[in-house]
Amino acid sequence: MSSEKGPDHSRRKERSRQAILAATRALVAEETYEKVTIEAIAARAGVGKQTIYRRWPSKSAVVFAALLALSEDADGQSVALPDTGDLEADLKLVMRATVEEFTDPAFDRLIRALNAEIANDDALAAEYREKLARPLDEAKKARLRSAQRAGQLDVDADLDLVLEVLYAPLFQRWLYRGGPLTAAYADSLVDATLRAFAPRKESGPTPPA
Amino acid sequence: MSSEKGPDHSRRKERSRQAILAATRALVAEETYEKVTIEAIAARAGVGKQTIYRRWPSKSAVVFAALLALSEDADGQSVALPDTGDLEADLKLVMRATVEEFTDPAFDRLIRALNAEIANDDALAAEYREKLARPLDEAKKARLRSAQRAGQLDVDADLDLVLEVLYAPLFQRWLYRGGPLTAAYADSLVDATLRAFAPRKESGPTPPA
Repeated sequence: MSSEKGPDHSRRKERSRQAILAATRALVAEETYEKVTIEAIAARAGVGKQTIYRRWPSKSAVVFAALLALSEDADGQSVALPDTGDLEADLKLVMRATVEEFTDPAFDRLIRALNAEIANDDALAAEYREKLARPLDEAKKARLRSAQRAGQLDVDADLDLVLEVLYAPLFQRWLYRGGPLTAAYADSLVDATLRAFAPRKESGPTPPA
Repeated sequence: MSSEKGPDHSRRKERSRQAILAATRALVAEETYEKVTIEAIAARAGVGKQTIYRRWPSKSAVVFAALLALSEDADGQSVALPDTGDLEADLKLVMRATVEEFTDPAFDRLIRALNAEIANDDALAAEYREKLARPLDEAKKARLRSAQRAGQLDVDADLDLVLEVLYAPLFQRWLYRGGPLTAAYADSLVDATLRAFAPRKESGPTPPA
């Protein structure tokens, strides 16, 4: 529909969208989340408040869109994980990048604010799962399935559980500031996960302990 | 000091403390956290607002105290973990109990509200770590050290990492409502953790990959 209004209109719309999301990220990085307002975002982006409200129903929706846009930038169009054939090397690359992301102050502030909203807002939680968590999880699972085929991961492993064991400790350590987030820590999570879900030597059922 | 005012005074103080904490838990279970006020807690507990403010500086402090009291009730005086000599059985018992706690609606509401506060309040986060998380972690580590001595857990395992791999997936699944919290799930976390940190067969250093 927007193409009926010509390419200039589409470009202007996209420019204003990007300006709004960049302004949101900048403000969330500077202020506490509570202090960021739609007014302040509009002023910083050089647009009217209505331009924001036409697209997003609430502050948390704009902030979430700003986060989504960040992961678009980081990953380009595709969210596929590297697949060099070496699961350990690929996962360490990804987990080290994740640690760097979580230790970036602007990202930290943004995801910390959203986390608090998500915990008390079921609709936002559902949107988070649908638009961000699930596509990322599917990309990760595709890499894990490839490793199962290559005999580098237990073929019977529950891949949801594998992802939880790999990522949840990092997330919790970040959320509660429970310890250093370093490349060595990223590696240790990969090592623990690969030991937990190593291919079984025996193909028969595990004997009772 | 309070004993100078006699045992009746101490008993009354303790009764009023218990009434305030019980009222807080009841209100948080009934209302959203945002709607709970010090006024409402005072009314429900049958005390004056000042009685609450003399002891706790803020709503989040009372709510946190209510949570602490809950774990006192559950664990009695001691927070020691069971040690039957069978690490797998003991951990499954503890993790199943943890799953039950997190699926209890009153507990769920309380810890969800506090979680949001903790994420944005460094002082409360520090109090949470000091008064609740750390004593529980120490009790869990004592059990893990006993397992290391019994040859049931890698003697070189980083026990902070072991606890994260064991608990963080459950916490994240609960926080984001990411999947069912069941006894089978509790067991699968124990199984994965014990595989990840099983005693090494070789006693020498691990060769480079």
